[in-house]
Amino acid sequence: MEKTKNRTHILRGSIVYSESPRNLVTKDRAFLVCENGKCAGVFDTLKEAQDAISGEAGEENVSDFGDRLIVPGLIDLHLHAPQYAYRGLGMDMDLVDWLDNVTFPEEAKYAEITYAARAYDQFVADMRQTATTRMCVFGTIHPESTVLLARKLSEAGFGAYVGKVNMDRNAPASLCEESATASFTATMDYLRKIAFLRAQGKITDRVHPILTPRFIPSCSAELMDNLGELGRQQDLKVQSHLSESKREIEWVSELEPESAFYGDCYAKAGMMGNPIPSVMAHCVWSSPEEIKMIKDGGVFIAHCPQSNTNLASGIAPIRHYLDEELHVGLGTDIAGGFSRSIFRAMADAIQVSKLYFRHVDQTKQPLSLAEVFYMGTMGGGEFFGRVGSFLPEYDFDAVVIDDSGLDSVVGMDLAERIERVVYMPDLCSVSAKYVAGERII
Amino acid sequence: MEKTKNRTHILRGSIVYSESPRNLVTKDRAFLVCENGKCAGVFDTLKEAQDAISGEAGEENVSDFGDRLIVPGLIDLHLHAPQYAYRGLGMDMDLVDWLDNVTFPEEAKYAEITYAARAYDQFVADMRQTATTRMCVFGTIHPESTVLLARKLSEAGFGAYVGKVNMDRNAPASLCEESATASFTATMDYLRKIAFLRAQGKITDRVHPILTPRFIPSCSAELMDNLGELGRQQDLKVQSHLSESKREIEWVSELEPESAFYGDCYAKAGMMGNPIPSVMAHCVWSSPEEIKMIKDGGVFIAHCPQSNTNLASGIAPIRHYLDEELHVGLGTDIAGGFSRSIFRAMADAIQVSKLYFRHVDQTKQPLSLAEVFYMGTMGGGEFFGRVGSFLPEYDFDAVVIDDSGLDSVVGMDLAERIERVVYMPDLCSVSAKYVAGERII
Repeated sequence: MEKTKNRTHILRGSIVYSESPRNLVTKDRAFLVCENGKCAGVFDTLKEAQDAISGEAGEENVSDFGDRLIVPGLIDLHLHAPQYAYRGLGMDMDLVDWLDNVTFPEEAKYAEITYAARAYDQFVADMRQTATTRMCVFGTIHPESTVLLARKLSEAGFGAYVGKVNMDRNAPASLCEESATASFTATMDYLRKIAFLRAQGKITDRVHPILTPRFIPSCSAELMDNLGELGRQQDLKVQSHLSESKREIEWVSELEPESAFYGDCYAKAGMMGNPIPSVMAHCVWSSPEEIKMIKDGGVFIAHCPQSNTNLASGIAPIRHYLDEELHVGLGTDIAGGFSRSIFRAMADAIQVSKLYFRHVDQTKQPLSLAEVFYMGTMGGGEFFGRVGSFLPEYDFDAVVIDDSGLDSVVGMDLAERIERVVYMPDLCSVSAKYVAGERII
Repeated sequence: MEKTKNRTHILRGSIVYSESPRNLVTKDRAFLVCENGKCAGVFDTLKEAQDAISGEAGEENVSDFGDRLIVPGLIDLHLHAPQYAYRGLGMDMDLVDWLDNVTFPEEAKYAEITYAARAYDQFVADMRQTATTRMCVFGTIHPESTVLLARKLSEAGFGAYVGKVNMDRNAPASLCEESATASFTATMDYLRKIAFLRAQGKITDRVHPILTPRFIPSCSAELMDNLGELGRQQDLKVQSHLSESKREIEWVSELEPESAFYGDCYAKAGMMGNPIPSVMAHCVWSSPEEIKMIKDGGVFIAHCPQSNTNLASGIAPIRHYLDEELHVGLGTDIAGGFSRSIFRAMADAIQVSKLYFRHVDQTKQPLSLAEVFYMGTMGGGEFFGRVGSFLPEYDFDAVVIDDSGLDSVVGMDLAERIERVVYMPDLCSVSAKYVAGERII
């Protein structure tokens, strides 16, 4: 592990990145330039790469990774950090039983800061080893524990939106905030603590708080209004869940009969992209009206195929969403999903799209490798700014992958190698990782 | 790695096995006894374990694996060894394009014994590291290369049925046997070579040849008849593919208009269990008549959920098959599947059953962990005899799993640990492996 604040580099390796949803660029043994934390191009020779750097970058900043793969850092648009410790557990239960018996009792433990510290240390250490560089992550309702999570992610070099969860109804006593006011106050407390640490230089400018109402069933309309107002005042973004399962959608329509549909509850609080930029997990069963609202608001969809399968929620119609030119990224949704790998999420997304094609709608072609690679990098990365590609001016998030565990008697070209990495990430490892030009592994 | 011919052991560890399709037994830090290659019980104390051994087994045969998991060896009921080298490749293609562009050109290379040797060395070495102990495996049409495969599997200690593939129609010239007679003769050659090596003690009694007509489209009725006659004469078993995709079924009905349905083509050659014991991969789209024939013949179904997903074939109705009390095991179907892990196949089987429940038939409950564990051990193991459990008199196939990579701040009981191994086998490793009482790792 090498850690340096130097933010101008030339990396040599076999480079793969998206330049558009359907165009995957591959460059064998080329030179990737980072200048002051931003991408400055991909070149065939070292001389061209050096000439592209305006400043003082000398040879000492050249890292030769030989024939290793270099890809943009992966973007996990949706996961729950406190659920990491028990991922892969209780998968035979349905959603409600799983929340009651596994998730809620475990999340309640994060009231204790020492427990949170141990659990989040493990979470952050393990995520460091993945190809993920940025994430939108849920904490718990507890401000202090969630501040700790943000701080640990920052120290490890990640880019992240980190949310203290809001829940003022339909939660067990140990995990329910006392009132809309209490929940709002706790969020204010969380924001203040983050701002304080940032002022002290203890949280980088790549880690931000984000509004995180858990989902409509656990947040009263009063709470939603207050959070919406806060979002507008403080230029916050928001993350939540939307139309994950049919039963949840029915429940929302009972709880909020005055809303036209699920997404309308968020819209009333300004949280469907207008004015508050938002990322919504799942959207498995969004109605045409909801899809229109998602499109009009530029809402990001965090597609979490593994979680939607594990909880038997269903298959989100991603082909339709891509045809509609919605913003779609990928999420692991730990611990609805058990895997921490966005490569795995790419493969899962292709796989469920094939079953959707076969069993649900044969007019919807399966997703391609180029499309899911885009979703797991550039598609989700746009929520963070110019992130997720090696196009000029993008933040320099890069991951060097050792795929020698996939060596074969069959010779593979670069496009074939990246396909195998997507399907078999567990046989690969991360050799180096950069976020906004800073080397963090 | 320790390799010994000693076949009486006492293993200490945390033991998990199926005793029936829905009953998973868990025993924390217990003692598992193997006497002369057969299971002799699970006991709470060393004394009880030692007392259970009738013969001379002394303390030197006790292996204390502490709290590591000990499970029956996993059974891979269907995979293609020559496809291992390019698994995870061309997954965006449909089945026909994939066969023409990837599979057939690659399988043709196995005419060259030096190429086969290199590829099969890698295949066998990698499979050794998995939890699989027994497999039903396809080679290619080439007798010598397939003999080499059988020999390498034998030397590595596996139990296996290994088949030289038959194809006398609808294949590219490089991979099509000249005539039904030529194909039959090549199979006879294969059988003789295996018998010769066995007589020399170079192939163990755990590795057997098996008839392997690729599937009906690639085998003429004349060839099938001849193979069926051979199977009856020499007490062989048979492995093939059945009702994998709709397009394939239509093709079969065009090729063999006199057969009532796909399975009927095999039945005419005696290959639907009656009289030749058979394992058929897939059965995604079997008709009621075909299902009845499978049941009546005691045919084993090799359920390959990952392959059926990758090739967009569909989801096999396994809940229905279990309700009908059919014999169902699991297969990786390398390289329709990219994973070599039967734990992964277990998780995949649960996952696709959830999508089947959600999108196809809500009367068919998803598969449970206990059910897929049974399928991946005892269910498939029955094709090999009394294999796949730790019940008394079963062949002693045991795998010791190190799951410390799944350590968590959340304490897990044994049932929870095995669930996490099934979902995250890539974070575990195999510490020791026994087949029929022989330690092979």
